[in-house]
Amino acid sequence: MGSASDLPIMEKAAQYLDEMEIPFEINALSAHRTPREVEMFAKGAKDNGIKVIIAAAGMAAHLPGVIASMTTLPVIGVPVSSTLGGMDALLSIVQMPPGIPVATVGINSAENAAILALQIIATGDASLQKKLADSKERLKDKITKANRDLATLTYRFKTN
Amino acid sequence: MGSASDLPIMEKAAQYLDEMEIPFEINALSAHRTPREVEMFAKGAKDNGIKVIIAAAGMAAHLPGVIASMTTLPVIGVPVSSTLGGMDALLSIVQMPPGIPVATVGINSAENAAILALQIIATGDASLQKKLADSKERLKDKITKANRDLATLTYRFKTN
Amino acid sequence: MGSASDLPIMEKAAQYLDEMEIPFEINALSAHRTPREVEMFAKGAKDNGIKVIIAAAGMAAHLPGVIASMTTLPVIGVPVSSTLGGMDALLSIVQMPPGIPVATVGINSAENAAILALQIIATGDASLQKKLADSKERLKDKITKANRDLATLTYRFKTN
Amino acid sequence: MGSASDLPIMEKAAQYLDEMEIPFEINALSAHRTPREVEMFAKGAKDNGIKVIIAAAGMAAHLPGVIASMTTLPVIGVPVSSTLGGMDALLSIVQMPPGIPVATVGINSAENAAILALQIIATGDASLQKKLADSKERLKDKITKANRDLATLTYRFKTN
Amino acid sequence: MGSASDLPIMEKAAQYLDEMEIPFEINALSAHRTPREVEMFAKGAKDNGIKVIIAAAGMAAHLPGVIASMTTLPVIGVPVSSTLGGMDALLSIVQMPPGIPVATVGINSAENAAILALQIIATGDASLQKKLADSKERLKDKITKANRDLATLTYRFKTN
Amino acid sequence: MGSASDLPIMEKAAQYLDEMEIPFEINALSAHRTPREVEMFAKGAKDNGIKVIIAAAGMAAHLPGVIASMTTLPVIGVPVSSTLGGMDALLSIVQMPPGIPVATVGINSAENAAILALQIIATGDASLQKKLADSKERLKDKITKANRDLATLTYRFKTN
Amino acid sequence: MGSASDLPIMEKAAQYLDEMEIPFEINALSAHRTPREVEMFAKGAKDNGIKVIIAAAGMAAHLPGVIASMTTLPVIGVPVSSTLGGMDALLSIVQMPPGIPVATVGINSAENAAILALQIIATGDASLQKKLADSKERLKDKITKANRDLATLTYRFKTN
Amino acid sequence: MGSASDLPIMEKAAQYLDEMEIPFEINALSAHRTPREVEMFAKGAKDNGIKVIIAAAGMAAHLPGVIASMTTLPVIGVPVSSTLGGMDALLSIVQMPPGIPVATVGINSAENAAILALQIIATGDASLQKKLADSKERLKDKITKANRDLATLTYRFKTN
Repeated sequence: MGSASDLPIMEKAAQYLDEMEIPFEINALSAHRTPREVEMFAKGAKDNGIKVIIAAAGMAAHLPGVIASMTTLPVIGVPVSSTLGGMDALLSIVQMPPGIPVATVGINSAENAAILALQIIATGDASLQKKLADSKERLKDKITKANRDLATLTYRFKTN
Repeated sequence: MGSASDLPIMEKAAQYLDEMEIPFEINALSAHRTPREVEMFAKGAKDNGIKVIIAAAGMAAHLPGVIASMTTLPVIGVPVSSTLGGMDALLSIVQMPPGIPVATVGINSAENAAILALQIIATGDASLQKKLADSKERLKDKITKANRDLATLTYRFKTN
Repeated sequence: MGSASDLPIMEKAAQYLDEMEIPFEINALSAHRTPREVEMFAKGAKDNGIKVIIAAAGMAAHLPGVIASMTTLPVIGVPVSSTLGGMDALLSIVQMPPGIPVATVGINSAENAAILALQIIATGDASLQKKLADSKERLKDKITKANRDLATLTYRFKTN
Repeated sequence: MGSASDLPIMEKAAQYLDEMEIPFEINALSAHRTPREVEMFAKGAKDNGIKVIIAAAGMAAHLPGVIASMTTLPVIGVPVSSTLGGMDALLSIVQMPPGIPVATVGINSAENAAILALQIIATGDASLQKKLADSKERLKDKITKANRDLATLTYRFKTN
Repeated sequence: MGSASDLPIMEKAAQYLDEMEIPFEINALSAHRTPREVEMFAKGAKDNGIKVIIAAAGMAAHLPGVIASMTTLPVIGVPVSSTLGGMDALLSIVQMPPGIPVATVGINSAENAAILALQIIATGDASLQKKLADSKERLKDKITKANRDLATLTYRFKTN
Repeated sequence: MGSASDLPIMEKAAQYLDEMEIPFEINALSAHRTPREVEMFAKGAKDNGIKVIIAAAGMAAHLPGVIASMTTLPVIGVPVSSTLGGMDALLSIVQMPPGIPVATVGINSAENAAILALQIIATGDASLQKKLADSKERLKDKITKANRDLATLTYRFKTN
Repeated sequence: MGSASDLPIMEKAAQYLDEMEIPFEINALSAHRTPREVEMFAKGAKDNGIKVIIAAAGMAAHLPGVIASMTTLPVIGVPVSSTLGGMDALLSIVQMPPGIPVATVGINSAENAAILALQIIATGDASLQKKLADSKERLKDKITKANRDLATLTYRFKTN
Repeated sequence: MGSASDLPIMEKAAQYLDEMEIPFEINALSAHRTPREVEMFAKGAKDNGIKVIIAAAGMAAHLPGVIASMTTLPVIGVPVSSTLGGMDALLSIVQMPPGIPVATVGINSAENAAILALQIIATGDASLQKKLADSKERLKDKITKANRDLATLTYRFKTN
């Protein structure tokens, strides 16, 4: 995260990874305020056994791009909303120049960042595929249940 | 690609993968016009040995999201610009609902999609890491050479 | 609806149709989380006697377009607002590719979706025309009454 | 159309309807410059046997909404792009107030307007359903052929 | 006003005109829901002694443009904000086609609409010029007083 | 005009006023580069017999607002488009603070600015009303003729 | 400041400058309501010993540009947000015409304006450099501490 | 510059500085492709006698912010336009987090960046003030001449 104030948004990513039993670490590292720490983190990540990096930032959200420029690991960017609804962070993260992609997810979409991270790791680890498929089933169950509840609701409307 | 007309933009992705000797296939599949073919492709992708899917689309660019909903493979989305400069495609691709992320890159950024795909595969394949690092060095060489050329230019300005 | 959380917005559509005594059903079906259910619903709709489909969704709002690609029934799309004020959903719904239109109404405009649905059905059912005309008169009465109230208000301003 | 200058864009709607053998008429009627003609057209449309109205306009594109306020027929709005890429026309057409919907399609999407018109008429005319389904198959064929051509292309990339 | 719900915003216009002793009337007239009343109002305005019309509306804010098309009196448009911050109403009001201008003021800027109305009437009525100049002096006094208050504030900051 | 480069756009205003035989003058005055000249012009305008001021400017288009702050004459602002399609100039002109309205017309809409100017002057000069009404008839004739031409066109489509 | 209502936002600039012991003054001066005072302030600034001017304004935020046109001192502009999230003020401040730059900072970023002012003064005053470097270290300490706190947090997530 | 392709835009800055006889150097340094070179440049700048840094970049334009995070010198950012008209680069440069300001100028406004640089240096160097004032006079002369030319033009319009 670019700032500790992004924690309430990024918590969902942590919860998902925890639930899926994927080991992870959280850091507050600012591309602008602690550039040296960002560099040490980004350059050392691969040797420290990190497979994917999720970077969240708001406004002129440089953190994901700066990390991406210092590693060959995939970097997932999470735009965090502020006064312009997150449009500034979205454009600052997604519009990277040729050579340095950032895998951008939706504004404030921390959980999706975690799912994408898991999907990426799973490309080289078959045992994770089942976890992902199961997790997808649960999503489906939730909306299927919502649909059943709506059936009752429909009834109420019609009889009124 | 959502349409064969996206080929001039997506060619750069193909060229990069070709250069890096990564086997790939190109398809024109429309989320709306050939939904059955999209489904067959997306659901069969993992068993066909595909590791990552790059999906490019313009306007209400649903293709990346629709594919992502039918596979647990990572899906990279490339927004293609039209009358609104690509803002429509960018938002349609990146703002996915919880559970179904699309790894979005910049507007028309086909090459970055290919690089990201390689970075993703490389998380489970150490031999690809060197290729990536080498490719990054070449990027650096190009801009370093540009800088040397500018030094000459500076001289010309100053002596005028 | 793409999610049960859209119900507070879509309720107005249900109320209008109920008031007009048009039979309808409500479903929560996600283009991304329950694609198979969406397909079954969309492909079976015509044979199940459905004449028009209203689909509401937020963010990268694919539901209306995905349904439209699987039926020849008219599909009405309702963009639901989130962090970008609904601009993402609006563009994701309205900017459909050639061949697959979605009849898009305003952001969060559930009641208008219901009215449009009724107008569409009425093109083939003369008895519904009167209902529509009557409903329009009531709209007029409401604003005419507001105008009478303002006349009083004007008076108060002027005498102060 | 709000102006004769919209003809190059709206021609595609005419060609589609002509191809589908749906009788239609084209008018240039300005909400602002010929309000009386707009009113006569809109109020008389139903009695003149018109089932659906397609209205195209650019900038502060009032024509679709103005017509919609004067008829209970469904009105399809086509935003036409100018200096802001069509964003002005899109918002002016789609963001209608409660009671008066306009079925909005994408920016400059004349053909989609015509297809939507046909879908609407077909809700009350079973014989049109087959035409629509056939037309959809042709769309599919076009993209399926594009996919076959890409297979050749892929081959060329790989062997280079 | 396009709707009685715009009254809290338009009240400031009424208060300003009342303060300046300019006779006025307020109406709620919808371009879409009461088109006949709008037409009667707009076409009769000049003969009823009206000099300038202020029209406020939100969303696809057609009211100012529709009135402008039916009179040669100057029409002032006030965009009213809703889910998109008023951008929809602003573009729907200001981007009028050639021949039918609307004098647009800022989003929710009812008071400015009233001042502009007074400035317009004053072009043909010298006695109103003094009122305007006096009103401008009061604006200046207010900010000059604010500046004096800030001088105290500055002092407090510096001594802390 | 804020710059002589705005002349190709503003010419239409000059032509309209010339056609309507309204005396006018054109100046290139920059709010930022010649503030003193702007002030002399704005403060002297009323005494020089000027009734309405049209001010065109692009980008951070301050000219209309700066002039409006120095006169009680009505000021009409014309936003001129550049890299952002004119959105920057539109917002810089229309979003004026309380007390200093600018009557804003559409992006590059010079002719509408001239028509609005004439409408404003006509509020105090009955003889100009007829000119305006006649000019409006000509607009109507033009579109009515376009409609007749379309009737022929329609025929051609139908017989093909 | 363009208005005393901007004080809650600009207070942070005052606090920073106070903390850094840089003498400053605050004024409420409106480009539109007190143009004469703005001119006296801007033209006299250099002779009054002022080195840099910070100007904050919202909506059609002309104040920074108007001041910049009347002095050769650097002018820093702070866009203040209102109904459009500050996009109007940002474009009105940053998009200045050739010849008259305004050094624009982020929306509501008063503290950054103060830091930039200090950086500018420090280019000609070596003793201020140390202050700036020290202040930067404090920023780093804050985020480094946040990172340590997150380490604890991570632990909590993992053990759950 | 972030890329040698920005040279056609940045040339105007070089020409202005050359004309004003301010020594400068031009570099192509990419925040993402040559981060080490950017760091060496930014950290060494002050000791190399540099007073102000101008950084131009397009898309997710990180270069100005990254440099600003590594120096206490003032950094001027120039957003360069691409498919979104420069809105992406503008937001990526201007919306910097607390502590690290970038002095942003308009989209593609290289000359203004150079003028601002000169204004900044001049705060500590009285001899540069005269150069700036003279340069400003020349701007004024140019527009004053344009105004004289317009006077002739006006005449032509009136006699026609």
